[in-house]
Amino acid sequence: MSSVNPSPSQTGHLPDTSGSHSGDAVLPTPHQPLAGDTSTPAYAELVDRFIRHYHFKHLGDICSWDRSAMMPPKGNEARAAALAELDQLLHGLLTDPALQPLLAGAAAEPLNDLQRANLREMRRAWLTSNALPTELVQRRSLATARCEHAWRSQRPANDWAGYATNLRPVLDLVREESRLYGQALGIHPYDALMDLYEPGLTRAAVDRVFDPLRHWLPPLIQQVLARQAEHDAAQPLLRPVGPFAVDRQRELSLAVMRKLGFDFDAGRLDVSAHPFSGGVPEDVRITTRYRDDDLLPSLMGTIHETGHARYEQNLPRAWLGQPVGSSRSMGIHESQSLSFEMQLGCHPGFVQGLAPLVAQFFGDQPAFAPANLARLLTRVAPGKIRVDADEVTYPAHVLLRYDIERALIVGDAEVDDIPALWDEKMAALLGVDTRSDYRNGPMQDVHWSGGAFGYFPCYTLGAMYAAQWFATLRRECPTLDERIAAGDLKPVFDWLNRNIWQQASRWSSAELAVRASGSELDVAHYRAHLERRYLG
Amino acid sequence: MSSVNPSPSQTGHLPDTSGSHSGDAVLPTPHQPLAGDTSTPAYAELVDRFIRHYHFKHLGDICSWDRSAMMPPKGNEARAAALAELDQLLHGLLTDPALQPLLAGAAAEPLNDLQRANLREMRRAWLTSNALPTELVQRRSLATARCEHAWRSQRPANDWAGYATNLRPVLDLVREESRLYGQALGIHPYDALMDLYEPGLTRAAVDRVFDPLRHWLPPLIQQVLARQAEHDAAQPLLRPVGPFAVDRQRELSLAVMRKLGFDFDAGRLDVSAHPFSGGVPEDVRITTRYRDDDLLPSLMGTIHETGHARYEQNLPRAWLGQPVGSSRSMGIHESQSLSFEMQLGCHPGFVQGLAPLVAQFFGDQPAFAPANLARLLTRVAPGKIRVDADEVTYPAHVLLRYDIERALIVGDAEVDDIPALWDEKMAALLGVDTRSDYRNGPMQDVHWSGGAFGYFPCYTLGAMYAAQWFATLRRECPTLDERIAAGDLKPVFDWLNRNIWQQASRWSSAELAVRASGSELDVAHYRAHLERRYLG
Repeated sequence: MSSVNPSPSQTGHLPDTSGSHSGDAVLPTPHQPLAGDTSTPAYAELVDRFIRHYHFKHLGDICSWDRSAMMPPKGNEARAAALAELDQLLHGLLTDPALQPLLAGAAAEPLNDLQRANLREMRRAWLTSNALPTELVQRRSLATARCEHAWRSQRPANDWAGYATNLRPVLDLVREESRLYGQALGIHPYDALMDLYEPGLTRAAVDRVFDPLRHWLPPLIQQVLARQAEHDAAQPLLRPVGPFAVDRQRELSLAVMRKLGFDFDAGRLDVSAHPFSGGVPEDVRITTRYRDDDLLPSLMGTIHETGHARYEQNLPRAWLGQPVGSSRSMGIHESQSLSFEMQLGCHPGFVQGLAPLVAQFFGDQPAFAPANLARLLTRVAPGKIRVDADEVTYPAHVLLRYDIERALIVGDAEVDDIPALWDEKMAALLGVDTRSDYRNGPMQDVHWSGGAFGYFPCYTLGAMYAAQWFATLRRECPTLDERIAAGDLKPVFDWLNRNIWQQASRWSSAELAVRASGSELDVAHYRAHLERRYLG
Repeated sequence: MSSVNPSPSQTGHLPDTSGSHSGDAVLPTPHQPLAGDTSTPAYAELVDRFIRHYHFKHLGDICSWDRSAMMPPKGNEARAAALAELDQLLHGLLTDPALQPLLAGAAAEPLNDLQRANLREMRRAWLTSNALPTELVQRRSLATARCEHAWRSQRPANDWAGYATNLRPVLDLVREESRLYGQALGIHPYDALMDLYEPGLTRAAVDRVFDPLRHWLPPLIQQVLARQAEHDAAQPLLRPVGPFAVDRQRELSLAVMRKLGFDFDAGRLDVSAHPFSGGVPEDVRITTRYRDDDLLPSLMGTIHETGHARYEQNLPRAWLGQPVGSSRSMGIHESQSLSFEMQLGCHPGFVQGLAPLVAQFFGDQPAFAPANLARLLTRVAPGKIRVDADEVTYPAHVLLRYDIERALIVGDAEVDDIPALWDEKMAALLGVDTRSDYRNGPMQDVHWSGGAFGYFPCYTLGAMYAAQWFATLRRECPTLDERIAAGDLKPVFDWLNRNIWQQASRWSSAELAVRASGSELDVAHYRAHLERRYLG
């Protein structure tokens, strides 16, 4: 990516980083200057202020989890008011006029590398927090709340015209927001939106990996479908027979989380309508949902969220509370959930160990035979809905959204153009007809209604990073697949811990990739992974 | 009580208050002055500030509940830091120097009665928040944390000497605190401590009800025990046979909560080591704990907490967010939990309906026959432990603590005197020998370790108020006992809602009692209740 600042060791990840960071033994934590050192008063003051911000954010994160996982309906209004009050406080902490001279002062202080990385992240938080005038934030908040609220009934009614009425003002405000963020960060407006989720990401960097994908993905999907049909003809796929008791699914989820190293002394699994990973790094709250007619969605959803959770649970303890100690970005986060769900969870060797666990909770069905279970988990079927998509067709959903939202932000398209663009791209990429089916077309996601433009690319960047991490792992540990098949996941966890989790936000995503894998994001790893798994 | 400000209608509670408050139809909520009214700018500003305080407190209340009911152990340190940060913010909001002129300004504004009551409560919150210098609060916090922490291991070790070492500095600080609160409120130091939990409460008011109690309680206990022994000889008491599956106990608890009108759309039941009622009025979180060898503790504990919960759930919606809209006091709160647990839960008529519910979940045991179940629930047995005490001996535990802590605060006793005082009073009040058994003596409660002196009287005041509410209910609804026996609890809930819940903090406790029952707290109702139930 364009903002990369290559490390001195371009040849690959650092050699002796096991357990702690290369050279970190002599560095203090970012929280505290060296004992007795009074040469960094501005930096020390910033550290205190960001710890305060972290403490308050903790309360919001736990209360937000509670809202989704625990709160009864009548608590909603009071909770919303309390969280809005907290948001205002958090925003106030980052827009305090005292910060500007402190940031300038700290930049002139004798900071070590870690502290300087922390200062970089502080500055970023300050820039983005100050980019928008309060009245714009309020107008945006009203417009997105109205759009989201109406969407909940307009989507089931397939009411595109009604939805468009509310989406237009949201788009207007996001365009204004993108210009202001762009000005503050000195970058292009759409890049500025992506930057909120994936710092440093640019259209050029996305295109570098999405343009090849755009060309090889549709034929790959057709090849995979043909291969799958042959396989089905030769050996019919067996479906598990339900119902699947919810309490057993929960037990299975907990068992798989244990297998995947989730620390239950520092987190929980609960239920919510839309699964997520929340809470705080010291206490990660993941959720899933159960359907009694199918056990695979809760199982794979739990594995996905466990990937997010382990990243948070293994951020460096000593850095927590400071911006440099938080997870790097949405793309890198997704690379962890997809490392768990796709690279590991659907790995035929992993499935060998998963199958008996499933049978332990749901009986010895023929469908739970490892080879059949692996086929179930890698089933490819082009469809209209992104969140239901398989590993192979998922990126098509992202490509389409990236193209459309980018055009919307730069003014090459308007809200009224969305349905036609959608239909055309769904037909071209997946051969799926979405005409007039708005609710399963551009009305299926909540992102745009909520003003979240620039987020979608992160999903597929995450999948690509995950493939790159595992390609590196295989290079470094040639027996990796055998070890996974033998139930030994330690090489995977150790590598992720050392190269991703413990690095937190010390480097840009691009530099993190170079240090971890020897190169910036390279789509070849992703293509190789898909071909190996689905055509190999 | 001495601070009572009798209402114009001394003859009893107001006649036509069903549903809403007498005369309130013409009053605005305390939140908003009349539309277009700009004559109360200081009051309006105070209202905004207290709403802000309420929003932040919401986050702390939910996170505190979470800490006890949900949080895994490794989350503790971060949670403690976050809650401490919030405490500092909340304290800062109430010690903002801008409040003093606003309070003075509002006092000169044309406020209605409700607004004036709100201003009185605001002033009280401001006075108590500003009474202590920050350094004292910090020293107190350190001393109590040290004392509580050590107590957790000293209590099981029966180490009085070690415990006393930590309790002495706590007492010193609480004495200092009591002098400062006393100065701020213009009252006696021990009254000032009680005032924190029960505003307006004085030693004189406590003595007015405790002095008679002190004389008639010990002989009453002996009479009850003799009567109970006779009854046992004539008809042996049957004990339920366990084990009692925890999930069934939970189902039973939920069923009883439904019977008692708990609103599950505005609250939850969960598990914690020490049962409590928490959360926020809009979303009340109660907890219980289950033992598989006995079902009655979780059952009666749930009924107790449901009483607290219904008070909170039925505070007047329009007043929430303002001090006048919160529950009146600890004593009044306890009068609700004990109205549910003792007045209602152990009522032989109520038990007629409870018994088949218990049998529904645990089978048709002879012990669950209504008459036997009622005997189990009203079993009297003098013992060393307050929290395990029955309805009849419980007040003895409170009398003893009141006498000792009052002597400690005024300097008539020192920490080293506690064991001898304890032994003497336990022998005199309950005939129980506690010599050398410190862990089941003065080390059994956490209150004093945490600096909570002045709280204990509220438990028994609550029991007395509960008896007074039910005496009034019977006067107003002569068929009350028949209706309870028929499973019709509406008269109880309607009365409590109208007279207690919907009154929130509009009146002092003493005036609330006069308006609800026609007189200030009168211990005769309590004595009559005990005699009727246990000697009738």
